[in-house]
Amino acid sequence: MIMAADPEMKLLGLWCSPYSRRVEIALSLKGLAYDYIEEDIQNKSPELLKYNPVHHKVPVLVRDGKPIAESLVILEYIDEMWNDQKPAILPQQPYERATARFWARFIDDKCLPSILKAFWGPENEQEIAEKEARLNLKTLEKELEGKKFFGGASIGYLDIVANFIAYWLDAIQKAAGKEILTKEAFPLLFKWKQDFIACKVVKENLPPWERLVAYYQIRIEAAKASKR
Amino acid sequence: MIMAADPEMKLLGLWCSPYSRRVEIALSLKGLAYDYIEEDIQNKSPELLKYNPVHHKVPVLVRDGKPIAESLVILEYIDEMWNDQKPAILPQQPYERATARFWARFIDDKCLPSILKAFWGPENEQEIAEKEARLNLKTLEKELEGKKFFGGASIGYLDIVANFIAYWLDAIQKAAGKEILTKEAFPLLFKWKQDFIACKVVKENLPPWERLVAYYQIRIEAAKASKR
Repeated sequence: MIMAADPEMKLLGLWCSPYSRRVEIALSLKGLAYDYIEEDIQNKSPELLKYNPVHHKVPVLVRDGKPIAESLVILEYIDEMWNDQKPAILPQQPYERATARFWARFIDDKCLPSILKAFWGPENEQEIAEKEARLNLKTLEKELEGKKFFGGASIGYLDIVANFIAYWLDAIQKAAGKEILTKEAFPLLFKWKQDFIACKVVKENLPPWERLVAYYQIRIEAAKASKR
Repeated sequence: MIMAADPEMKLLGLWCSPYSRRVEIALSLKGLAYDYIEEDIQNKSPELLKYNPVHHKVPVLVRDGKPIAESLVILEYIDEMWNDQKPAILPQQPYERATARFWARFIDDKCLPSILKAFWGPENEQEIAEKEARLNLKTLEKELEGKKFFGGASIGYLDIVANFIAYWLDAIQKAAGKEILTKEAFPLLFKWKQDFIACKVVKENLPPWERLVAYYQIRIEAAKASKR
């Protein structure tokens, strides 16, 4: 059930940003309505510069004129602000919450940078980055043992944070013609990815597949051209 | 009041680590007793490798055999686990909590790296890093306007996270003979630093001054020698 629009809630986002899409999934999970404002990252709006003067980055959630930036921070805010609305996003117990936060940082600080470097890093560093990416994904995959989702029986905070691995990585792999996350090497992550994307609330908040692949094809061509 | 030791709580720490000291301050604030285990960072203990297999870094808080790593994650855990014990570490309201988390990441992802680079980065990059460090500190300083502490009238989460800026930076400045955080350039941060260090719970959980300065003198000499 989508509630009546909070007259003062808006999200500054970008269609192809996994960080921005995390927030969209969380808002949908809680059944919250909001105004969505698409940013042009080549030509940032005065609003983005005003509401995120430190990083100038999406996503920014603005409620009653007060901005919150950084996707992980926004996810916690949404869960706390609407904590009486099910489902909960973070786990309920302190130890499980701590574990989820630890792995969320692992995804943002280790997994994503190593994956991006494997595709866009200096050519002579891509192979090492790819190895590192595989190691990181293997480390993360262990967290799925015995569970359907990172959050347990249904998706939660860590699943949302891992959205890049479930969808964007596939689009990049297709655009680049190079595979890291295969069914053979990462059976649990591969299964998780399919289950995650099959969730209604996730599916409705993913960028269109063909457009995303085309976007990455252009980025990969541009990177190659700049190295010529 | 220090409570009876939790028989199963221990902290793997390092005397000179600001991250490790953050946790000590938080545990002291809550009046919690624990066993402290000093790590030898040149020769990491099997316990550290077991309890933080991903990063092999201090601090790690272990309770009932279950480890929690990463200082920011541990601070939130302590506040949630003992949320009925005053004082609260994080603010109570969702928006204020989000703001504190945002600035905590700013300190760890922007301020600290730029400061460390200004002292230990490649020589031809130190000047730019120093400028960046000043800009970052100026941005952070604005958060102190009209407040004694980042947390308001008394210290909280963000003050604890900023402990490096209050104490370690001074020791580094003294060891290196180069100043970034001066009273003239950063009047609010300078005043905050003095107030923060004067707090009993902080004072009791800081590394000895002379030892810390000597430690950094050795590190600075070593960095110089490696460049000769």
